[in-house]
Amino acid sequence: MTHIDDLPVRDELRGKSPYGAPQLDVAVRLNTNENPYPLPEPLVARIAERVADAARTLNRYPDRDAVELRTELARYLTRTTGHEVTYEQVWAANGSNEVLQQLLQAFGGPGRTALGFEPSYSMHPLLARGTNTGWVSAPRKDDFSLDVPGAVEAIRTHRPSVVFITSPNNPTGNAVAREDVLALYEAAGRDAMVIVDEAYTEFSHGASLLELIEGRPNLVVSRTMSKAFGAAGLRLGYLAADPAVVDAVQLVRLPYHLSAVNQATALAALEYTDTLLQYVEQLKAERDRVVEELKGLGFDVTVADANFIQFGVFDDPHAVWRFILDRGVLIRDNGVPGRLRMSVGTPEENDAFLDAAREVKKEFGA
Amino acid sequence: MTHIDDLPVRDELRGKSPYGAPQLDVAVRLNTNENPYPLPEPLVARIAERVADAARTLNRYPDRDAVELRTELARYLTRTTGHEVTYEQVWAANGSNEVLQQLLQAFGGPGRTALGFEPSYSMHPLLARGTNTGWVSAPRKDDFSLDVPGAVEAIRTHRPSVVFITSPNNPTGNAVAREDVLALYEAAGRDAMVIVDEAYTEFSHGASLLELIEGRPNLVVSRTMSKAFGAAGLRLGYLAADPAVVDAVQLVRLPYHLSAVNQATALAALEYTDTLLQYVEQLKAERDRVVEELKGLGFDVTVADANFIQFGVFDDPHAVWRFILDRGVLIRDNGVPGRLRMSVGTPEENDAFLDAAREVKKEFGA
Repeated sequence: MTHIDDLPVRDELRGKSPYGAPQLDVAVRLNTNENPYPLPEPLVARIAERVADAARTLNRYPDRDAVELRTELARYLTRTTGHEVTYEQVWAANGSNEVLQQLLQAFGGPGRTALGFEPSYSMHPLLARGTNTGWVSAPRKDDFSLDVPGAVEAIRTHRPSVVFITSPNNPTGNAVAREDVLALYEAAGRDAMVIVDEAYTEFSHGASLLELIEGRPNLVVSRTMSKAFGAAGLRLGYLAADPAVVDAVQLVRLPYHLSAVNQATALAALEYTDTLLQYVEQLKAERDRVVEELKGLGFDVTVADANFIQFGVFDDPHAVWRFILDRGVLIRDNGVPGRLRMSVGTPEENDAFLDAAREVKKEFGA
Repeated sequence: MTHIDDLPVRDELRGKSPYGAPQLDVAVRLNTNENPYPLPEPLVARIAERVADAARTLNRYPDRDAVELRTELARYLTRTTGHEVTYEQVWAANGSNEVLQQLLQAFGGPGRTALGFEPSYSMHPLLARGTNTGWVSAPRKDDFSLDVPGAVEAIRTHRPSVVFITSPNNPTGNAVAREDVLALYEAAGRDAMVIVDEAYTEFSHGASLLELIEGRPNLVVSRTMSKAFGAAGLRLGYLAADPAVVDAVQLVRLPYHLSAVNQATALAALEYTDTLLQYVEQLKAERDRVVEELKGLGFDVTVADANFIQFGVFDDPHAVWRFILDRGVLIRDNGVPGRLRMSVGTPEENDAFLDAAREVKKEFGA
């Protein structure tokens, strides 16, 4: 049998494992920040209808530029942020991962460096590796918020071509203040792109940073329909930025990268924005409830602006993770020292988690 | 207004344009090798049904490893080639473009070179550029077949990490003989991957080269559902190779790259394999008819093993392309000296093209 090491695979990939959370068959899955609410049945019917329409011309290539979809995404951004966005400022791809990969292909690559503030979304360094972009990590403060003077110094030292700011941050949960982004943008200068990854922004207590793209051509806001739209299975990520940024990613995007069925499904979901945003409100209220309960139990809880909650502190987080799993609740050990992350689920799922958390308290203290 | 050149885009992208055929609103579109037959209505209904099922759990991430889809693709390959393939030997992505990009990320990249025999599929060098892989082009013979001794010499000279063999070749149309692939595989050695791009193989007069993967871990066959399955809008490409190759691309693939709706649509189409392959037979017969008619008119026609036909010879192919376009038929000027390419359409579309070709004969000679 041939082993991967027998093939002429690139040296930096040798000994590596594919990215991905363990997928276990557990009753309560609160490990990958999925939205627990299935799409409403009228939306399922509308998806079937729009996909059938698209399937009738599936022998033809899809709209390469996804203009209708980008127009509707721009409309959604305008409506929810109050900042007017046009389709020329929007680009969409298969998940925000592909959006970020395209940005790194255009603005990163060999001889260039990307900088992130870790712990953060663990795909950022993997996307850098996949595009042969160097990676530099700068630390956060003890409360996991950005250390702005330290971040500015890291930018001045490493002169990155790409700076990732995740707000709200994953897996810790805290949003980044407007003025902090501006300080980092200033420090990064015109030879760098600053990417604000807003995958979870709809769940934040604060406002989106979207309006910052105005007059700042080196600033990109990336988004996804995976979380707020309850559509992780759809893989629809997008960005908003100066139209010149959209021109740049079009030089590296694969032609016809977005299937006609993905475009049709996303358009159907966007028709149901109001309904889906009601689920977001429910999840925000549940998140705040679980935060209060965890605090009441005496856990240390990080500021939670997304649809997940980081809590601790544990001497052996993995043992606690396993203890909770043994009680039928799968959460995530992201490798952050002393902490674990739970995704906010339905009230019943959260109660199951809180029951387990109470037992953790008895068993482990913390 | 910000221009792309004001941004810190990579130097090698400056002044470039995005890839893509001109999309013009013309009655008869024979320019992008699409299958002219829409999916049958029962299949459209089945797609709607399977997508609705998938949409009911769209809040969850899709199967990251697409096991059901890979199993059905393996079954299709086994059935149509007579060579047994298992899902561990199959990988799928958003179009064969993404499959090839993943292969270049794993086996190409900085400091490595990919080699192709041009004219060939023009995305191959663009994918190399997008993955920072060097590109070397070796020529074909005058009849556009592979120049095997020249190819072997080019491989020995440049020591590429990736060799592209397109069979049937796009845009010229000729398939590659089994023994020629074996000669190139031998020359390339164990430090290279040989990728046989079989996007059009279902239309060939000869057999698929798929069986060559057996016992040859450095050989990859790439395929697509865009052409034979009449599903260009679906963007479903796949490969068959040693399971170790599948392990390697999993190190660079974006997690959850294939949406649940794409997987569901592809699975529905695979249920209709028999029906769709009947369209392939019709297209093959039409292709052979158009070849004979073009020859009868005195055109020089390249051996045609795909769902398109390369013909000439013209002093000014672009003027001929425009002349045919003015008659309501859009074909493709791929930049091959003296030649144009037409995609085989329905009998009516092909007749419209042949009418224009007769006028070409009068106007331009050739």
